[in-house]
Amino acid sequence: MPVGTKGTVKGLTPGDLREAGAGIVLGNTYHLYLRPGSDLIAEAGGLHAFMGWEGPILTDSGGYQVFSLARTRRISEEGVEFASVYDGSPHVFTPELTTRVQEELGSDLAMVLDECPPANAGREYHEDSLRRTARWAKRSKEAHKRGDQALFGIVQGGLYPALREESLARTVEIGFDGYAVGGLSVGESRDELLETLALTAPRLPVEKPRYFMGIGDPVGILQVIALGVDMFDCVLPTRLARHGAALTQDGRINLKNAKYRWDFGPLDPGCLCETCAGYSRAYLAHLVRENELLGHRLITLHNVRFTVDLCRRARREIEAGHYESWSRTWISRYTRSDHKRADELE
Amino acid sequence: MPVGTKGTVKGLTPGDLREAGAGIVLGNTYHLYLRPGSDLIAEAGGLHAFMGWEGPILTDSGGYQVFSLARTRRISEEGVEFASVYDGSPHVFTPELTTRVQEELGSDLAMVLDECPPANAGREYHEDSLRRTARWAKRSKEAHKRGDQALFGIVQGGLYPALREESLARTVEIGFDGYAVGGLSVGESRDELLETLALTAPRLPVEKPRYFMGIGDPVGILQVIALGVDMFDCVLPTRLARHGAALTQDGRINLKNAKYRWDFGPLDPGCLCETCAGYSRAYLAHLVRENELLGHRLITLHNVRFTVDLCRRARREIEAGHYESWSRTWISRYTRSDHKRADELE
Repeated sequence: MPVGTKGTVKGLTPGDLREAGAGIVLGNTYHLYLRPGSDLIAEAGGLHAFMGWEGPILTDSGGYQVFSLARTRRISEEGVEFASVYDGSPHVFTPELTTRVQEELGSDLAMVLDECPPANAGREYHEDSLRRTARWAKRSKEAHKRGDQALFGIVQGGLYPALREESLARTVEIGFDGYAVGGLSVGESRDELLETLALTAPRLPVEKPRYFMGIGDPVGILQVIALGVDMFDCVLPTRLARHGAALTQDGRINLKNAKYRWDFGPLDPGCLCETCAGYSRAYLAHLVRENELLGHRLITLHNVRFTVDLCRRARREIEAGHYESWSRTWISRYTRSDHKRADELE
Repeated sequence: MPVGTKGTVKGLTPGDLREAGAGIVLGNTYHLYLRPGSDLIAEAGGLHAFMGWEGPILTDSGGYQVFSLARTRRISEEGVEFASVYDGSPHVFTPELTTRVQEELGSDLAMVLDECPPANAGREYHEDSLRRTARWAKRSKEAHKRGDQALFGIVQGGLYPALREESLARTVEIGFDGYAVGGLSVGESRDELLETLALTAPRLPVEKPRYFMGIGDPVGILQVIALGVDMFDCVLPTRLARHGAALTQDGRINLKNAKYRWDFGPLDPGCLCETCAGYSRAYLAHLVRENELLGHRLITLHNVRFTVDLCRRARREIEAGHYESWSRTWISRYTRSDHKRADELE
């Protein structure tokens, strides 16, 4: 899911997203609640109408941003108090409020309010937190009224297998339309992430979608898919693009590197996106160096298409029964050290 | 002509420009010579291939930027020395060099190197300058080799009718494929601009295109068309867009104003562009407030389309013989004080 933080995947129109093959877009409840306000978006006819995107939308609950952006916040059983990142104004997110806000936004998939503690918060903190998150999940479900909107629960528990198991059991017991694995990609190593996910994902109900919150690098995507994940989101492909970095089948390249100035080939010869079809690396490198809006846009378009195409291919390989060998070969090409080294040296 | 300073009309693809109806795009020789370099663009197959725009391109000679951007510059008979705005490196533009650079860029219309003094430089300075500009124009023409590229001369002479007449006579005597009126829009009042243009434009050869350098506001466009101008360029429509200001038939509106936050109507009800068809003022106002790339892009698209549509309409009214009455009515609606005042108050 490309991330449309504030009701826009930065630089792209809904038409571009369709063209790139995006099947669903993520919106951030925290940002949209504060700016322009979910009341305004409801008045516009919901987030789909407001941003002009007719495809599915998933909204998070805002919890992650409260915990990652807030300078001051206070958690209680009731919910979480925080100061707006925009103007410092005080707000309280409760399970009931974030559910109502997501109903106003009119997303197709909504998330329960959860707490996402840092990996190193300690076992006792994680235990208390996951139990509160489970109680919040129950309140979110009870508050949820829209029949045309799915509601997902979130499994927490840090890196502790027993706590993951407890959180999973409590969340599944409440019963949701899908389940997310949260609290990873928050400071732990990639190995710790995968180990914890490997214990958690297989125990989630097989008939419900499994959503890994916060992964978007190509290798990470293939790794979590291998563990049974169906959905994921991350700002990485779009944020990288705005820094001049493009994803290619031969690894990530930084268009600020001098060697691309005179490189008149396409960004990624294997890609069929508008950017690769219409522009050279030299032109994109020029736009990036001059900090031109069009550079951000064209590379974003490519990175989204690249990531969506990767997921499509993964789906095909799973169906054909070749996922493991295919993904091993793909990762090996993507991470080949000579490519990486060449780019890091400049 | 929308301005594609550095090989891109900021935020738009060539496809967007076609969609907006742009028939020709302007490129800045000064910027392209310094970044990424005309040698690199020549290697890419010229500016058309480099930026992916198949339609006509006009390049200026770079003279205007030398005079407006340079902190240090020294004019001699040979040419003009200046320090790059990017890195302070020293360069010399001569008529021969800027002609060759434009041939490398491969534009369809090239301009002679001229000096564009400030309106208040004094009569003596203007007199010396226009004569040097005429000598430079002759050298530009002698240096010009590409048969597939038109070359335009430029009339200078400040606000002095006799000097305008002299510059015009000297330039027409050399003989060019088209003629530009330069040295206006450089600090004088709009009335002075129009008075000077009214003396100059009618004396230009009727069978050759007349290009007014540097006007782009809707009223100004209609005023110079009335005086016989065929072509003009300005960054105004695109620059305004990046500041959140949109052109509408009811005047210029600033989307940062609070009243647009809850305005769910289209930007300009009379416009058929992608922006007006697909998005509300409220959504655009949100994007502008959040400084989102998509806001710059969508309003740029609209402002370019609006300006191109205005010119198309002007052409039709000229052909129908109703230009004067139509443009009077149009300007009166565009500048109606109640609209303007409403926007200025907020």
